[in-house]
Amino acid sequence: MYPALKNDSFLKACWRQATDHTPIWLMRQAGRYLPEYKATRAKAGSFMGLATNVAYATEVTLQPLDRYALDAAILFSDILTVPDAMGLGLSFAQGEGPKFEKVVRDEAAVKALEVPDMGKLQYVFDAVTSIRKALDGRVPLIGFSGSPWTLACYMVEGGGSDDYRFVKQLMYSRPDLMHQVLSINADAVALYLNTQIQAGAQAVMVFDSWGGVLADGAFQNFSLAYTKRVLSQLIKEHEGVKIPSIVFTKGGGIWLDEMKDLDCQALGLDWTVNLNKARRTVGGEVGGPGKAIQGNLDPNVLFAPPKQIEKEVKVLLDQFGTPHMDSNAFGPTHIFNLGHGISQFTPVEHVSALVDTVHAYSKYQRKPL
Amino acid sequence: MYPALKNDSFLKACWRQATDHTPIWLMRQAGRYLPEYKATRAKAGSFMGLATNVAYATEVTLQPLDRYALDAAILFSDILTVPDAMGLGLSFAQGEGPKFEKVVRDEAAVKALEVPDMGKLQYVFDAVTSIRKALDGRVPLIGFSGSPWTLACYMVEGGGSDDYRFVKQLMYSRPDLMHQVLSINADAVALYLNTQIQAGAQAVMVFDSWGGVLADGAFQNFSLAYTKRVLSQLIKEHEGVKIPSIVFTKGGGIWLDEMKDLDCQALGLDWTVNLNKARRTVGGEVGGPGKAIQGNLDPNVLFAPPKQIEKEVKVLLDQFGTPHMDSNAFGPTHIFNLGHGISQFTPVEHVSALVDTVHAYSKYQRKPL
Repeated sequence: MYPALKNDSFLKACWRQATDHTPIWLMRQAGRYLPEYKATRAKAGSFMGLATNVAYATEVTLQPLDRYALDAAILFSDILTVPDAMGLGLSFAQGEGPKFEKVVRDEAAVKALEVPDMGKLQYVFDAVTSIRKALDGRVPLIGFSGSPWTLACYMVEGGGSDDYRFVKQLMYSRPDLMHQVLSINADAVALYLNTQIQAGAQAVMVFDSWGGVLADGAFQNFSLAYTKRVLSQLIKEHEGVKIPSIVFTKGGGIWLDEMKDLDCQALGLDWTVNLNKARRTVGGEVGGPGKAIQGNLDPNVLFAPPKQIEKEVKVLLDQFGTPHMDSNAFGPTHIFNLGHGISQFTPVEHVSALVDTVHAYSKYQRKPL
Repeated sequence: MYPALKNDSFLKACWRQATDHTPIWLMRQAGRYLPEYKATRAKAGSFMGLATNVAYATEVTLQPLDRYALDAAILFSDILTVPDAMGLGLSFAQGEGPKFEKVVRDEAAVKALEVPDMGKLQYVFDAVTSIRKALDGRVPLIGFSGSPWTLACYMVEGGGSDDYRFVKQLMYSRPDLMHQVLSINADAVALYLNTQIQAGAQAVMVFDSWGGVLADGAFQNFSLAYTKRVLSQLIKEHEGVKIPSIVFTKGGGIWLDEMKDLDCQALGLDWTVNLNKARRTVGGEVGGPGKAIQGNLDPNVLFAPPKQIEKEVKVLLDQFGTPHMDSNAFGPTHIFNLGHGISQFTPVEHVSALVDTVHAYSKYQRKPL
């Protein structure tokens, strides 16, 4: 159906297979820091106009690949498409974050929630298929979703928040209602990701962007438990090809020990986590079990001059250490990424310094002495 | 000079001495959630009008003690008084956060920085003395300062930030300049805290509110190293009485192992940290070295009904476990607090449920079986 992959380094690293360089992609790599993105966005009129138009979504997904030697593409979409399909009415006011018309703060609103008809998200699946075709085997395509907890934050708060007061009030006051919301979200997210896989996604990622705002205990019960519920329902293989999954919890480094047994292939880490420690905790040994590690440069490093960027990138690659090089065994691998989405203010030429340094230095690391 | 303390449970717990209950105080316990605070604030006209007026600062510091059985008072002030005294021009616009007239983003601005004349902060020291007198030995008075890194965030950003772009750009581009800023800040903070001690503060706390936004490596070099520089300059004793110090790093739980050797008596923790794990990591054994642990209820628990608050408080007290009860030895102790400042939207009667449960349940924990 699709041409064979010309660059499978990202997928190999997800599966803890040896690669000749450390693959790199960037969270929000298609986005506002790129002038070509802004041009397409202007044509589309609005953010949702961009996300729901298959041709535009395809165009912006491929833009960063034309500019940088990235090793994966990620579907251009928003993490809030699922609650929008649940009927909460998503909109993006100019210059502001997402807003929902309806909020879920009481029993009646919770009772009204259902796993949405995937037909309402057809524009996403159409975009996945269109992007997969347009990629023509250059690099693999990653599908994604917000985590059940992260979606719940927006559904209860009605938009972004700096204190998560309403969602935590519901959680602490009526944990029964919160568990209902999260169960529905988990089943919806699993179905959403599985339909993306069927449409052509070659890996999937769960963004638990707000897991880290939870207290110890609450994180395990209200975020991690429902990420597990998503993972347990995921298709493991599509048309004979295994599909890896990645879980990223911003602020989750403190719970790395508890995430190491998740049924996923890779863990995404933010910049607060030491990569050497992460490798020792979850990376595993050659021939043994473990997870690939994805991350974790502070996106703000990209505001420094290229020489400083190179220095910081090498520090991280050295901190992880040379990934395993045994082509006959699984072992510790690293997928380079930022620790969170790239800033809209990032100078475009600085991203080249990042990508090129990761490739060059990680090849150098693998050279025999 | 001052009357003897009637309630020394907080100071004893700082020194890892046995107490008959777990002491509690709350970060921002004097603040906008209290109607009596709002009344004083209205009389003062502005936030800085309140903070710089000795009578008002004394009044609002004591307000929460009249309402709740808290075990410590904390100076009412702002963490940005020091950069204000450096001449950066602090103001608070109505309904908005702090703003500085001047920002520190280039070499010229860095070169112009100096440890400020403590005379410019006399209103703070006068407030400390006035509060200490007004307390009349009810509970001890805690003095405080922002950490060198946290102050630098505001000085470079010019106010609050959600991405710390400018301060991190300076840090990654010109680490030499950032180290200069932090050195000056550290010396200023140490002098500021020492002068508070001389004015009557019985304990001091360093708020590293933004340490947790730093990447691993950067935290150690740009935040922790300068907290150490502050601690190394602190007066350890005043008029024959030892003065304990507390370090609180929001988001610092991931680096607990590296903070356990700080030259301070207690570590403040946010709600992401498991108290049982924290006790094992830094709390020490009876007769052995260690630190008191302060924290760490999610302030959003206070939006739940009192019954739920009681339940969550007991979970935390049980998680820490019974503090040591040997009156002849030092051992693990817990100072109850929130994991961050109390929200301005907190229902006042919910705070009673919190304070009363901590006292009653922690006494019950200490009962012989």
